[in-house]
Amino acid sequence: MLHSFAMGFFELQKSDSSSKARLGRIMTTRGEINTPVFMPVGTQASVKAIDPRELHEMGTQIILGNTYHLSIRPGLEIIQAAGGLHKFMNWQLPILTDSGGFQVFSLAKIRKIRSHGVEFRSHLDGSLLFLGPREAMEFQRILGSDIAMVFDECPPHTCTTEEASEAVERTIKWARVCREQPRADGQFVFGIVQGGISPQLREHCARELVALDFDGYAVGGVSVGEPEPEMMKAVELAEPFLPASKPRYAMGLGTPAQIVELVARGVDMFDCVLPTRVARNGTAFTYKGSISIKAGFNKADFRPIEEGCACFACRNFSRAYLRHLLNVDEILGLRMLSVHNSHMYMKVMEDIRKHIAAGTFTDFREEFARNYVPTQKVLAGRQGSILKSGAETETEVAI
Amino acid sequence: MLHSFAMGFFELQKSDSSSKARLGRIMTTRGEINTPVFMPVGTQASVKAIDPRELHEMGTQIILGNTYHLSIRPGLEIIQAAGGLHKFMNWQLPILTDSGGFQVFSLAKIRKIRSHGVEFRSHLDGSLLFLGPREAMEFQRILGSDIAMVFDECPPHTCTTEEASEAVERTIKWARVCREQPRADGQFVFGIVQGGISPQLREHCARELVALDFDGYAVGGVSVGEPEPEMMKAVELAEPFLPASKPRYAMGLGTPAQIVELVARGVDMFDCVLPTRVARNGTAFTYKGSISIKAGFNKADFRPIEEGCACFACRNFSRAYLRHLLNVDEILGLRMLSVHNSHMYMKVMEDIRKHIAAGTFTDFREEFARNYVPTQKVLAGRQGSILKSGAETETEVAI
Repeated sequence: MLHSFAMGFFELQKSDSSSKARLGRIMTTRGEINTPVFMPVGTQASVKAIDPRELHEMGTQIILGNTYHLSIRPGLEIIQAAGGLHKFMNWQLPILTDSGGFQVFSLAKIRKIRSHGVEFRSHLDGSLLFLGPREAMEFQRILGSDIAMVFDECPPHTCTTEEASEAVERTIKWARVCREQPRADGQFVFGIVQGGISPQLREHCARELVALDFDGYAVGGVSVGEPEPEMMKAVELAEPFLPASKPRYAMGLGTPAQIVELVARGVDMFDCVLPTRVARNGTAFTYKGSISIKAGFNKADFRPIEEGCACFACRNFSRAYLRHLLNVDEILGLRMLSVHNSHMYMKVMEDIRKHIAAGTFTDFREEFARNYVPTQKVLAGRQGSILKSGAETETEVAI
Repeated sequence: MLHSFAMGFFELQKSDSSSKARLGRIMTTRGEINTPVFMPVGTQASVKAIDPRELHEMGTQIILGNTYHLSIRPGLEIIQAAGGLHKFMNWQLPILTDSGGFQVFSLAKIRKIRSHGVEFRSHLDGSLLFLGPREAMEFQRILGSDIAMVFDECPPHTCTTEEASEAVERTIKWARVCREQPRADGQFVFGIVQGGISPQLREHCARELVALDFDGYAVGGVSVGEPEPEMMKAVELAEPFLPASKPRYAMGLGTPAQIVELVARGVDMFDCVLPTRVARNGTAFTYKGSISIKAGFNKADFRPIEEGCACFACRNFSRAYLRHLLNVDEILGLRMLSVHNSHMYMKVMEDIRKHIAAGTFTDFREEFARNYVPTQKVLAGRQGSILKSGAETETEVAI
């Protein structure tokens, strides 16, 4: 029964001839998803500052929710009483839920790793939340997501090889438990490959998980503070061991330019908080890089954020107006930057799919990289150093 | 030329037989406004948390902007460069601008009243802004509003009769100067009646302003901390001296129940920050009074804020979901309460117009008052005392 779901879950439609880019389609009971796809992040049952209509208008096919956060607030009993996460938040298209494994990393100060799972002290009231493979799968079953993630251990990028190895073994052990848990109707489950930048660990972890025959595979242990070359390496080390017939998901990544590069390395699915997070700091993504809309040079600039952009913000408002809204803390300012940035990500994915289909992905990739000015932080990562910069230019330092 | 505008500016369509309620129509170059009308407040060139599409969807006919705030940020030179306030904020329907007179009251600590106007120390950087009748009209001409307000002196409700009298004399003197200033194309100008709760002062101020033949008349010196009975009295004292052929505007008022009562006293136009302000505290307006959506009793209530409400929030989301969003500080929560509350005000105005047209306004008024539970603060005002209450019931204490 599970297997019959898995059989028709992913269709690989085309493989790019001059890169590892893939065009595909994921089929769920709540709708099809064209890949490569970007999934806006709705950690607490809301994509920050954006409403469902706006998500639909920008072509959102699937969003992400977070098991850890939703378990704490509003609590699973409320979501269960609502009839699941889709009904609770009024989002009828697919949802992927993260298992809480990433919070093992991001909430390192308030958790203890045990052999059967992880104890979290609530960041709100200190109450105890236990998440292990059984709990994570049960919680995701209650949430009713279309794609559930296994419960993994995500170590920091600064961990030792021994720590990375221990995390991999626990991740494999927990994945076996996750594999056997009951699922929600029509729910698919992805394994998560850990292993840092160790070729041996990445291969080992990938092979063990592939043997468990999950519906898809994620590369985890990225977006944990590593410089860009390590992020790329982690994906490159795992990818050759992942089956071509299943979707691949790079967790928590990245900038638009990084996503294009990761597609070229064979990744099909992405999620990232950047588009909405930097919006709240007044930063907009464009095809030329990120721009500070609050910057003085936008004071009397009555052009849209990006010429030719079809998003609600660019169709309606000027940089000068958005700058004003951000400067006086009007909510419409961060709303419109959130809409623009998320729409820009969706447009990049659409471009990617179009160019893979047309056989012109490598041209697109080169042109995109040529136009997109990386932030100082990304550049510093590429140069193997941390560069502190106060520079404020048209494309600048927000991330 | 001005006179020919004024001739066709307001059409009184019907006077209610059992109250002073009036049905009318204001005609501007940017569109017609059916009265009685509520004007959402866009102090800083944005109705807080709401976008123009949402304003159109709830039937907004005209919004309000604030000369004082816009003069400081973004500054008039930016709005002038944009081609006026409408273009700057992308709102093509009518805008009424307040003159800055209310800030003489609300920013009392940082201003000095001179005979020719008022000196403000910017609340941001201490820089000096001078507003007098000439400046207020010039600034509103640059903003390009459809209805400009004269620059008045708005004293607190606790002022002495002598202070109230001085404010009235200055208001009349300044109104004469305002009357002679150049206007934007198609711009109408309203006089503002001051005089507190003194019958003599209200009559005197009204008569002097009516002699100046403004396009409409506002009752000012309300929404300055007075209890409800004083607010009603201020309007009742001014109204008999205002010409039936011109629109009347009660500035800064009020709750839905107060608006119904003020319509019954002959008022045609309203503005108030309550719908968006209380939204940000998690309070929703309903036909039964205001409700704390954050309250525990909404935890697992999967009904909309108000059954039968056609607003975007009620069509899409439950109380339980909105409560969750508010509790975890998700912007969508306060957005949706701002939309619901503003929509509710628009619906009340639509009901009012419909019932005046049908000759059933008094029935509507009685039913509305019977259903609408006032807040503790309003009740205390009616009882002539300030009641401090921590009570939290279905209809409660937010305002």
